[in-house]
Amino acid sequence: MHQLGDPDGGDAGDRSGHAFRAFLANWRWQGVPFLPYKEEGSAPFKSITRQVLFQAPDLRCELRYFEVAPGGHSTLERHQHAHAVMILRGAADVLVGAEVRAVATFDLVHIPAMTWHQFRTRGAEPMGFLCMVNAERDRPQLPDADDLRAMKRDPAVAAFLGSQAP
Amino acid sequence: MHQLGDPDGGDAGDRSGHAFRAFLANWRWQGVPFLPYKEEGSAPFKSITRQVLFQAPDLRCELRYFEVAPGGHSTLERHQHAHAVMILRGAADVLVGAEVRAVATFDLVHIPAMTWHQFRTRGAEPMGFLCMVNAERDRPQLPDADDLRAMKRDPAVAAFLGSQAP
Repeated sequence: MHQLGDPDGGDAGDRSGHAFRAFLANWRWQGVPFLPYKEEGSAPFKSITRQVLFQAPDLRCELRYFEVAPGGHSTLERHQHAHAVMILRGAADVLVGAEVRAVATFDLVHIPAMTWHQFRTRGAEPMGFLCMVNAERDRPQLPDADDLRAMKRDPAVAAFLGSQAP
Repeated sequence: MHQLGDPDGGDAGDRSGHAFRAFLANWRWQGVPFLPYKEEGSAPFKSITRQVLFQAPDLRCELRYFEVAPGGHSTLERHQHAHAVMILRGAADVLVGAEVRAVATFDLVHIPAMTWHQFRTRGAEPMGFLCMVNAERDRPQLPDADDLRAMKRDPAVAAFLGSQAP
């Protein structure tokens, strides 16, 4: 019998016990742990949680659901791996490179390699999004003071970043 | 400047023109072609369309949106690659291996390697789902008469498959 977590990917067999996971109330899923976004203190972020919906040896990507409370935001970061995002609930302002855009439910965002990006909620509702990402990937990089100064030369980006030091 | 379709995955550069694609009315997305599910006559299916939301050289999976009209169904098939599915609208009965389950919006379905599976709409509303799949993958296999006979030994599966020959 092929089990979830079996690294060979398996062939036949009944994994139907693992196949179906119901959507529960309040943006939680059956059998999916409710996690902090990142380790506390590892990077700047605010009011965001993480649920890993799909992660398996036979899938070369993971699908995660992140939720940001009103007034919250993801880490401002960049990395070699790309992100493929679909907003599932609420609204946000999103920075990708030199562009800031307002997004809402079911909008798509592709974050290419080595591109600064950040999600900030807009309005009073939580903002939830799916993020597809390669299972094998590099660690995010944080901006230093020079990076932030360079970004803030663009007035729209400066307005988005607000008080983020320096 | 790094362009979508650049096979090296690129590094820096402003791809923000490609980054944002809006959700439009009626379950379509800006810049996303509306496609048939498969080539006509390549496999049995009914009333289903396909939109590829994310497919890029720096992503090892693709994210597709399929929509099945009321009374429609996907192909009954199996393959080595896995599927990671989230229902986005409507309701369906889903076969995965020996299990048949009713699913609705935001429910999750993991279809493991070499497991027969099929989606059939339930009710009067179209059923739409996201499907994450490895970019490199094998071709689906269709059941032969022996496979179908074996599946139909299970009464619940037989009821699901209904009149599918033999």
